[in-house]
Amino acid sequence: MDAMDALVDALQCLPGVGPKSAQRMVYQLLKSKRQRGLHLAHCLQDAMIKVQACEKCANYTEGALCRICSDPARADRTLCVVESAADIVAIEHSQTYKGCYFVLNGKISPLDGLGPEEIGLPKLRDRVEHENIEEVIIALPTSVETHATYHFIQKILAPYAVQLTQLAHGIPSGGDLEYLDGYTISSALKNRAALNA
Amino acid sequence: MDAMDALVDALQCLPGVGPKSAQRMVYQLLKSKRQRGLHLAHCLQDAMIKVQACEKCANYTEGALCRICSDPARADRTLCVVESAADIVAIEHSQTYKGCYFVLNGKISPLDGLGPEEIGLPKLRDRVEHENIEEVIIALPTSVETHATYHFIQKILAPYAVQLTQLAHGIPSGGDLEYLDGYTISSALKNRAALNA
Repeated sequence: MDAMDALVDALQCLPGVGPKSAQRMVYQLLKSKRQRGLHLAHCLQDAMIKVQACEKCANYTEGALCRICSDPARADRTLCVVESAADIVAIEHSQTYKGCYFVLNGKISPLDGLGPEEIGLPKLRDRVEHENIEEVIIALPTSVETHATYHFIQKILAPYAVQLTQLAHGIPSGGDLEYLDGYTISSALKNRAALNA
Repeated sequence: MDAMDALVDALQCLPGVGPKSAQRMVYQLLKSKRQRGLHLAHCLQDAMIKVQACEKCANYTEGALCRICSDPARADRTLCVVESAADIVAIEHSQTYKGCYFVLNGKISPLDGLGPEEIGLPKLRDRVEHENIEEVIIALPTSVETHATYHFIQKILAPYAVQLTQLAHGIPSGGDLEYLDGYTISSALKNRAALNA
């Protein structure tokens, strides 16, 4: 296989890139962006080798601890449990949460061989036990696997005096009732709040 | 800037990739595709360095001559003039053309400092003069700059006994009249063909 075909093939490991768009990328890089292409190759190699999981929360970092775990201004008695490091970016973007995180290694899925150990729940228990954690906020999307994950987190943390909470379910900002699923609307009705309180 | 931010930035040199999709790509590569990410970095570097312009036609190649120019089965008395090497892929895909190619370095555009010399017309003249070219097919998209390019090609090849042709203009296969522009429809009407010939 020649270098161009190999590159068209390799680009398809990127999400959303198929054969047609990969080919367009290759021709455009070769035509007028060779320096930027070489720079991209360098950055890619760099990130794939240097970026590792934070020792405490499994967020991505180049050092031993991530930016958040090593920030003394963060409230380290509150942990927010997320499914992937990408979710941290979204939560940080909201600028509301000042605690720390714990990234699960996926969600419970017996068919894929992912049990409580595999997704890192023992490590979560250790942190709760040794770091005087006061609240664990579960911030996982709603799905069948997530329900199993909730269940195991509750079970594993039962012996500790820690408050377990989950993100509120309801209508998203800008969400049009017409297009929302039944489960979301039923959650929003169940959790309705008093206006004249 | 850390390695992840640098990669999110660098990925945006790819056509159709903005900040959001670049971030999604980085997280997905880090999560489960590190080996493929490293392979992509390698292929990218390889292609950016090795792939050069064919000495005869300026198509992309890793050797001195491209696959087409070095194929003795191709009719080397016919040249098809295209605007970019990517157009060769599309024409080859149609499996109708058995001649050779000549890739222009863009199109005439005085505002961008691109005159006949810059886009490589003297080289086209040299090939016509020294290689007994019998037909030059102009396969450029229709635009104001292309008209200027046509004009210069005609002028530069006027002294030689070479047939100049251009691709037929008309309705594309599957093209819906309702959505076609006036110029295309007027070309299709002007060049209409007899059915009972």
